Amino acid sequence: MKVIADICVIPMGVGVSVSEYVAVCKTIFTEANLNPQLHGYGTNVEGEWDEVMTALKLCHEKIHAMGSPRISTSIRLGTRNDREQTIADKLDSVNSKLTGI
Amino acid sequence: MKVIADICVIPMGVGVSVSEYVAVCKTIFTEANLNPQLHGYGTNVEGEWDEVMTALKLCHEKIHAMGSPRISTSIRLGTRNDREQTIADKLDSVNSKLTGI
Amino acid sequence: MKVIADICVIPMGVGVSVSEYVAVCKTIFTEANLNPQLHGYGTNVEGEWDEVMTALKLCHEKIHAMGSPRISTSIRLGTRNDREQTIADKLDSVNSKLTGI
Amino acid sequence: MKVIADICVIPMGVGVSVSEYVAVCKTIFTEANLNPQLHGYGTNVEGEWDEVMTALKLCHEKIHAMGSPRISTSIRLGTRNDREQTIADKLDSVNSKLTGI
Repeated sequence: MKVIADICVIPMGVGVSVSEYVAVCKTIFTEANLNPQLHGYGTNVEGEWDEVMTALKLCHEKIHAMGSPRISTSIRLGTRNDREQTIADKLDSVNSKLTGI
Repeated sequence: MKVIADICVIPMGVGVSVSEYVAVCKTIFTEANLNPQLHGYGTNVEGEWDEVMTALKLCHEKIHAMGSPRISTSIRLGTRNDREQTIADKLDSVNSKLTGI
Repeated sequence: MKVIADICVIPMGVGVSVSEYVAVCKTIFTEANLNPQLHGYGTNVEGEWDEVMTALKLCHEKIHAMGSPRISTSIRLGTRNDREQTIADKLDSVNSKLTGI
Repeated sequence: MKVIADICVIPMGVGVSVSEYVAVCKTIFTEANLNPQLHGYGTNVEGEWDEVMTALKLCHEKIHAMGSPRISTSIRLGTRNDREQTIADKLDSVNSKLTGI
């Protein structure tokens, strides 16, 4: 089952700057071939369900190992079985409505 | 790695009533021994990371099989390595601040 | 427009324990007559849209005043115009499916 | 109080395709000068708290008027009082860690 996920990882107990941790997660997602796309409040990824969850688990393990004792992550997860759809397809679909094409 | 998760599954393309699907998920979480606790906008579960993710995948598969072609789920996921903490512990901690004990 | 919201406020830069801040928010929601109901990963509230947003803004202002320089909140917001529905109605609806009534 | 928000609006009861509604929300955010930035699972906006909440309320009202009887929105909301920060600043901060600059 393919999934498109939007992931926002918040390390706690490490101060207010968390960009270092977000960068580490992006690298993990890249190495897992999940096509990570950073935005201003999270990261989009896409791939097989199990691969996404394994990579996300690795993010938590790595961030704990970097010194954060507690992590709170918010995720949106989308699956569909009517047709294949990528992150790029979703953006194209909205943009076509905006431009009237 | 233990995780406390808060899960809100939204089946799309099946009308506005989704309680049937939420009930199915709760049953899946109960059978997986994840201590599900329903609230007004989701379900709390707790257990090992892989078991939570496997049960959630089963929820998506089941809801698709029930006829929903698309599902959008929002999740909060908490892990910590400084100490063990249960859902009940978290509630106790807030409630103790409210009562001044 | 009535709204049911599920709110999880995460103060950053204040260590790993956040129950004190959650308790303060619950008090703010109670004083705003938003019927707050705490669960293991957030708080359900219900009321008029503007009243919910005003109370949530007050939570952010209060938590900043208590010393947290940064706050990241995740929210689920539900509105409907087909019928009135309360938090209790939502729970009843799922529970009736679980018991087979 | 400035806020950066990430908003994902899910109209229910209108089928599986929701891009039309996402496009309408983006237009509302643009007209409110909230600098909307679409990604694969939501839209980033930034501005004054009250202006963001007013625009989001307008999105719900508009989507109901377009025929969706029920809407479930997930939001991430960030405020900070230690310094000014824009969506672009957040992306720059992560990207600088990725490139080693």
